[in-house]
Amino acid sequence: MKIQSVKGTRDFYPPLMAVRNFIMDGWKAVSRRNGFEEYDGPIFEYLQMYQVKSGDEIVEQLFHLTDRGGRELAIRPEITPTLARMVNEQINALPRPVKWFSMPRLCRAERPQKGRLREFFQWNLDIIGISDCRADAEVIFATINYLRSVGFKPADIAAKISSRKMLAALLLALGVQPDRLTALYTILDKKAKIPSEAFAELLAVQITDPAVLQKIQALMSVESLDGIGSIVPMTPDAQSALDELKTLFELLAAMGIGDYCRFDIAIVRGLAYYTGMVFEVHDLCGDLRAVCGGGRYDNLLRDFGGPAVSAVGMGMGDCVLEILLREKDLLPEPFATRCLDYFIVPLDPAHEQTAVQIAARLRLAGRSADFSYKTSGLAKQLKFATASNARFCVILGDEFARDGRLVIKDLTSGQQTTPTADEFWASIESA
Amino acid sequence: MKIQSVKGTRDFYPPLMAVRNFIMDGWKAVSRRNGFEEYDGPIFEYLQMYQVKSGDEIVEQLFHLTDRGGRELAIRPEITPTLARMVNEQINALPRPVKWFSMPRLCRAERPQKGRLREFFQWNLDIIGISDCRADAEVIFATINYLRSVGFKPADIAAKISSRKMLAALLLALGVQPDRLTALYTILDKKAKIPSEAFAELLAVQITDPAVLQKIQALMSVESLDGIGSIVPMTPDAQSALDELKTLFELLAAMGIGDYCRFDIAIVRGLAYYTGMVFEVHDLCGDLRAVCGGGRYDNLLRDFGGPAVSAVGMGMGDCVLEILLREKDLLPEPFATRCLDYFIVPLDPAHEQTAVQIAARLRLAGRSADFSYKTSGLAKQLKFATASNARFCVILGDEFARDGRLVIKDLTSGQQTTPTADEFWASIESA
Repeated sequence: MKIQSVKGTRDFYPPLMAVRNFIMDGWKAVSRRNGFEEYDGPIFEYLQMYQVKSGDEIVEQLFHLTDRGGRELAIRPEITPTLARMVNEQINALPRPVKWFSMPRLCRAERPQKGRLREFFQWNLDIIGISDCRADAEVIFATINYLRSVGFKPADIAAKISSRKMLAALLLALGVQPDRLTALYTILDKKAKIPSEAFAELLAVQITDPAVLQKIQALMSVESLDGIGSIVPMTPDAQSALDELKTLFELLAAMGIGDYCRFDIAIVRGLAYYTGMVFEVHDLCGDLRAVCGGGRYDNLLRDFGGPAVSAVGMGMGDCVLEILLREKDLLPEPFATRCLDYFIVPLDPAHEQTAVQIAARLRLAGRSADFSYKTSGLAKQLKFATASNARFCVILGDEFARDGRLVIKDLTSGQQTTPTADEFWASIESA
Repeated sequence: MKIQSVKGTRDFYPPLMAVRNFIMDGWKAVSRRNGFEEYDGPIFEYLQMYQVKSGDEIVEQLFHLTDRGGRELAIRPEITPTLARMVNEQINALPRPVKWFSMPRLCRAERPQKGRLREFFQWNLDIIGISDCRADAEVIFATINYLRSVGFKPADIAAKISSRKMLAALLLALGVQPDRLTALYTILDKKAKIPSEAFAELLAVQITDPAVLQKIQALMSVESLDGIGSIVPMTPDAQSALDELKTLFELLAAMGIGDYCRFDIAIVRGLAYYTGMVFEVHDLCGDLRAVCGGGRYDNLLRDFGGPAVSAVGMGMGDCVLEILLREKDLLPEPFATRCLDYFIVPLDPAHEQTAVQIAARLRLAGRSADFSYKTSGLAKQLKFATASNARFCVILGDEFARDGRLVIKDLTSGQQTTPTADEFWASIESA
């Protein structure tokens, strides 16, 4: 009976697993370098938890199930609700700031498409308990620190940054009613994603006053922070949010990544829960979705039954990233799926057991070692050794049969030595 | 609204995440050292896949769900069916032997108990395509290589090894009908797990002939391979299976782990699919379940629509292992959840931004660095630096305010230097 894999999932054969490890090892290294601590939660949670943050419409995007006790569970589509639950549970015991990262496996019941699968991995960074913009800067910095470390240049990608707080103040200053803001964000977030006519239509449904509509259109086309004042009368709230954003850009420049960062008022983010800075990193050449996105969220912990503590975070999926790494030729493929110190080559079936024994003794001494199960010719075994990225071959040939000497061949330089077994082990075990 | 986690799952706060990383990094390192390549599959598969290997009774132990297209899916309770599916799909393209490892997250809808959770991680090793006992030896060796590397001694644990093939031949020699073997394995597997009276009762239900029953009882109490011949007449099949097992023990001794390995005829393994060598590693002092188990399985690929290729594998869960590591005091806790090269300490609020800037520049230079968000007193910040396992502190104090000098404090030796910023960066960026 032949069974297929489920559509929208991936089989990580060793070469693809090596790509995943390349990506996730990089995320981990940069997170640690930036002082984030790793956490994780369970793969499933009570379904209700996702409804708290995202409403009932989230349910159809989830893989959900009823367990034997009749409880409704869901495979996690994101880790932020879990983070909020975990931090709330230990809010009084955790040292602040909570500066955590995670690389969860997530599932969404979406129709698979390019860069969007049903199962994926997502790098998450969050700083909880710091409301000043140094935390915003740190989250953006760590994100760019990673993207820069794998080879993306300022010509390849940009962190496009704006502020929900500023946008809200500006829209209120233009006469938009406070209770219309959330609906408006959803539309404004679409500006760069749909044709401008479609955008104008959507906007016109929400904003019926032509003067206000025109102002909002003009505002959404502004290209610099300094250009805003000529479009919208600056209220104290708007000015203060604008000043905060300026401080953030100064800080990002001082941190050495100013050339990766730019203001973009069209960055709004779809989710309702952002309350301050919002950002997305975009590929500057292609037409892909954002590589990642994030921002400040001040109410999430409270929504999950905890205190009102400010937080800022970022999420980056592996699918779009991997496509982009390939497009920019930044994946050092083919990856080594094995990387050995020693490969043992018995040329005579009589030495098969000795080969296993040598490999075992090397492994017990902390070296990586393997051997060929087939005592085929030297050329074939050397080929396998090279495919295994072995540094040295230990050949059991005539020298071994005759007087117990091993041939140690350096596969990089091609040089060989012929120590006795005792000499070889002395060199290994004294090292 | 306060929401709990699902019972039987774990929240990996940073200290527990560090334990998980300690365990899984160890699995990975030993797998690679032994020449295994890493793979992984999706977290869910078609439900049917698990029924192929384990029958319909597995369904109630699974977290299963119906997707929007009406397809029955299940969260994986083990990775072996996925492995069989993946290997079958590329059977002609994959270089043999397939020598793979994985560390999947798995879920089982069981009642949580000590060492048995609803969600766990499992180290899997498999060698596919090699039927001789060097592959059996390699799987046992890599398992012990790991357990030995984390500190378990031969007095702590033992790999208890037997052979399904030998047991089958012996039972057939005693007159058991071939179609009764599978049912009998399930009972024999319980010998060490239930009271001897209960075991005798179960056995008596299956074996009605008192003479055969007595022989089986005697056989199941045999303590060495050499003792078998005096209980059961050795058929050629039984003798050949016994000789194979002897060869395996010789090989394990030659590989340097003989003191961790012993014959134990009571190791049968519950699963139907083992066909040859079977083994479990047990804690010798406690009353825990096996730390891990495995064996040779010759029919699995074929059962999944592939060719009849022999394979041998092992699975080790993280829950029992973690308990045992703690019991034996082999977890170097508390683990460092952060480990920094530099911690920046601004003593004056005026230097807060400089602190961020220095941390950023260090990170861009590949160093791990962090800073305190609060410009509280030196003592408090040094305490935080120590908690972050920082190697050096960079203190921005009077020297910095006065003439731009940093105080670099080595937190191990306590020694300090006071370079100018230029001197400091020259030393960092030239290194």
